[in-house]
Amino acid sequence: MIWIEGQQSKSVADFGTWTNPLHTFPLNSINLLSLYLLPTPSSWLASLRCLLCRYFISRWLELCRLRKTTLMPMERRVQAMLLNFVLASFVFLILIRDGNAGITSSFIRSEWPAVDIPLDHEAFAVPKGYNAPQQVHITQGDYDGKAVIISWVTPDEPGPSHVQYGTSENKFQTSAEGTVANYTFYEYKSGYIHHCLIEGLEYKTKYYYRIGSGDSSRQFWFETPPKVDPDAAYKFGIIGDLGQTFNSLSTLEHYVQSGAETVLYVGDLSYADRYQYNDVGLRWDTWGRFIERSTAYYPWIWSAGNHEIDYMPYMGEVVPFKNYLHRFTTPFLASHSSSPLWYAVRRASAHIIVLSSYSPFVKYTPQYMWLQEELKRVDREKTPWLIVLMHVPLYNSNGAHYMEGESMRSVFESWLIQYKVDVIFAGHVHAYERSYRISNVDYNITGGNRYPIPDKSAPVYITVGDGGNQEGLAAKFLDPQPEYSAFREASYGHSTLEIKNRTHAIYHWNRNDDGKKVPTDSFVLRNQYWGSNRRRRKLKHFLLTVMDEVVNM
Amino acid sequence: MIWIEGQQSKSVADFGTWTNPLHTFPLNSINLLSLYLLPTPSSWLASLRCLLCRYFISRWLELCRLRKTTLMPMERRVQAMLLNFVLASFVFLILIRDGNAGITSSFIRSEWPAVDIPLDHEAFAVPKGYNAPQQVHITQGDYDGKAVIISWVTPDEPGPSHVQYGTSENKFQTSAEGTVANYTFYEYKSGYIHHCLIEGLEYKTKYYYRIGSGDSSRQFWFETPPKVDPDAAYKFGIIGDLGQTFNSLSTLEHYVQSGAETVLYVGDLSYADRYQYNDVGLRWDTWGRFIERSTAYYPWIWSAGNHEIDYMPYMGEVVPFKNYLHRFTTPFLASHSSSPLWYAVRRASAHIIVLSSYSPFVKYTPQYMWLQEELKRVDREKTPWLIVLMHVPLYNSNGAHYMEGESMRSVFESWLIQYKVDVIFAGHVHAYERSYRISNVDYNITGGNRYPIPDKSAPVYITVGDGGNQEGLAAKFLDPQPEYSAFREASYGHSTLEIKNRTHAIYHWNRNDDGKKVPTDSFVLRNQYWGSNRRRRKLKHFLLTVMDEVVNM
Repeated sequence: MIWIEGQQSKSVADFGTWTNPLHTFPLNSINLLSLYLLPTPSSWLASLRCLLCRYFISRWLELCRLRKTTLMPMERRVQAMLLNFVLASFVFLILIRDGNAGITSSFIRSEWPAVDIPLDHEAFAVPKGYNAPQQVHITQGDYDGKAVIISWVTPDEPGPSHVQYGTSENKFQTSAEGTVANYTFYEYKSGYIHHCLIEGLEYKTKYYYRIGSGDSSRQFWFETPPKVDPDAAYKFGIIGDLGQTFNSLSTLEHYVQSGAETVLYVGDLSYADRYQYNDVGLRWDTWGRFIERSTAYYPWIWSAGNHEIDYMPYMGEVVPFKNYLHRFTTPFLASHSSSPLWYAVRRASAHIIVLSSYSPFVKYTPQYMWLQEELKRVDREKTPWLIVLMHVPLYNSNGAHYMEGESMRSVFESWLIQYKVDVIFAGHVHAYERSYRISNVDYNITGGNRYPIPDKSAPVYITVGDGGNQEGLAAKFLDPQPEYSAFREASYGHSTLEIKNRTHAIYHWNRNDDGKKVPTDSFVLRNQYWGSNRRRRKLKHFLLTVMDEVVNM
Repeated sequence: MIWIEGQQSKSVADFGTWTNPLHTFPLNSINLLSLYLLPTPSSWLASLRCLLCRYFISRWLELCRLRKTTLMPMERRVQAMLLNFVLASFVFLILIRDGNAGITSSFIRSEWPAVDIPLDHEAFAVPKGYNAPQQVHITQGDYDGKAVIISWVTPDEPGPSHVQYGTSENKFQTSAEGTVANYTFYEYKSGYIHHCLIEGLEYKTKYYYRIGSGDSSRQFWFETPPKVDPDAAYKFGIIGDLGQTFNSLSTLEHYVQSGAETVLYVGDLSYADRYQYNDVGLRWDTWGRFIERSTAYYPWIWSAGNHEIDYMPYMGEVVPFKNYLHRFTTPFLASHSSSPLWYAVRRASAHIIVLSSYSPFVKYTPQYMWLQEELKRVDREKTPWLIVLMHVPLYNSNGAHYMEGESMRSVFESWLIQYKVDVIFAGHVHAYERSYRISNVDYNITGGNRYPIPDKSAPVYITVGDGGNQEGLAAKFLDPQPEYSAFREASYGHSTLEIKNRTHAIYHWNRNDDGKKVPTDSFVLRNQYWGSNRRRRKLKHFLLTVMDEVVNM
């Protein structure tokens, strides 16, 4: 058993990373001490296994000597049998995969060409009729999920900005008035972009809505979320860096099949900035039509990435987020934010905070000041699930964009731990990766600490920048896999987070797998607030009391 | 000699920081190796001293033995005398202060009260006459120093926006037309703010200018810098975090006496955001009048700090830099920047880059993209001195704002080294600090490196956030002083950088010292580009060739 001595060999490489030289030390107080000092769970477990193995081997050798030299009494035989059983179990246990070991998936994807879908493809089909509304997308319109913002574009003239809606198909009892505006980008002139806020909706209700006028009008529907409640079950989809290639189409179709009710979008939408001059605006339009199959029915919670900046001095366009902000709105005022780029919404049992990687975020900036206040407003008794979205991952072990999240990590990480964020979704890196619960807040330049360490109060960091845009996959991971990285694979895909109640949620990452949706990385996420024993006991006590009262009524 | 063994005692503490355990190692190959491996110059020197000391002591003891046992021949006596002389010199040398050791100044300041000057104080005097121009300040108006922007405020009505100017006193042959605007901040209504660009000026020329109309007009003067040239001598003053207290007044008066020709201002101007509602605008006005004694005559190169953000949601003011941007202009378009908050100017032999700590700066943001291009435009053959201004220091060992610069350091530090920036001036921390040439780019989370290390290509980092504002001094430094910190003192003051030629500049930090200007930290700054032997030799060769040609003419 080579691995006991801490040697790295092909046969044991699957059990984790074996970088710590303490493994080769003799079994003495230093080795015992190392159990407590080693930086990560996998190292800790490895040391424990190492110690146990040494113990059992020495006991076994002793028994072998006994067998050879004497006839054993009955008790000794029973002891020997028991020991053999324990030893066998132990060998079995060390042969199965260590749940804490970091995994770099060996899946090799036969990649589809990462080129954008041609303009005349049906995925970008323009709806029939003069001035027919297109690029329809909806998002949450308030803090708690009783409002929706409906956005669309009319290509030929402004037309009406109102939305007719109601709870029965083809019966639109109510209407709301929106706004319309257009803009230019270089010489491109946008269509007429409408945004209409519908407020005062009922929770968990299906609404039908109609936009446009006359023969060109179009109808869609959406469902409001359940009331904000700690045990409200809800299923989110998570997509990032989608773009408009055939891989993007595959991701989008798989997501539509997933049964998720709302998308948490982690930035980089159209990749229109890969084009020049008037084609930029044009490719924003095609993307709007491309996503409509989902966004007209399911709210997408937006966050912005670098491909939304559209800083193009060569064509005189230097106002950041110009295309994005004209087209995509967010309910930022409802969470007292001063910018559509950072905000928060509460939906079912989740409090979702959207951060902007490309806006100022250091201490004293508006985003920093806002987040400080917003985190205080989070009430885990009402919304147990605290989810943060951003574009640039704070932890990433891919060669692409490595350490780009350091800038924001150094500012916000201590808060994410203090407020026990459950999970952080990011995009940016065109691959999938999931971290352990770790933190690097002890690194302070002068103190000597240098590695991220296990931290049960820290969030799980998940990178889902694998929507499938034209830049292709980021397949070069750091080698060896850092101790903080739990699972990583360079494939296209999307994730779902199915919240069951206040304590548990089921998470899946679904690899596209060349056209088929394949669940790959799955785990049960325990809530960071309600997961604690004390709170669970309190909850159990409360439920038992209520049941007693019901029984005795 | 306790210090030789690396023990820390009161008597040797002045010689530097002695944290490296290698000092206690025996004199063997490890100790020799440590000379090259130890992280800072002070450790390196300490090890060298340690080795030399051991050598001389052993030689001396040997000689003592010789004296006791034999009569020495003449040569041996001469040798002994020489050795004694060398030993005495060595003892003397180790007793004088090690120039590379980090110093925390023991100067204790009897602090003046850090309160703002009362509104009715003469420091804020309103100039006489109806609608008389006030808050006059000038800044460079182009990339190379042949233009000036003149700004002022008329309190009662817009009045004329033109500037009359000329090279003789009271003779204003030329005039230029400016712009005027005003704004509101809460219910405060600003005066009429004028900005006027004067272009096409002669280098190194004194200009007189007149603003306002009739009896209320006012006259000032300024001097243009010498032509952009690698050996153009020039004296800059550096001020930060000034505010409007009596300490600020002291700093300002000392600066005026310094003979510096232009101020490099490292952010945090008026501290008006320490007030509420209408008093914010009012205190921006008083600051404008306060600094006029210098800014009407000498250009101040502006950079913005956190006290310019003025993000005040409680009074409905959330647009960042609203007061600052209305009042202070910069020639940002001349350096192809898209924002007045980051830009560059060339002045005499210096290329000055102004960064914005509170604007987006991570990869892909406009500031990042601009800096990438601007650094390529730097031509050290024309402007040998590359100076960067920012508000938040990238290296700081004060308890106040510790590690706030990490966010920007992780993004820009490698460029600062690649382009061999000479010196970086920052403010923010209300104390003075100077670093060695060090870098922390090797820290990459997973690699194991954790400390900043000496790096001869790195800039010197200087924090001059000690202008004297109402927040008072930041007197709690990290203890022990980190190896990267060269000198630090919690006093008010300002700096000057006197560029002599392409290779050398003289730097001073001047402590206010309760009303008297006391030069405290001074050193000769060698140019990072022309300081290299190869380039100096090339220059010498060129100059000799020119001299030969002149002689032979």
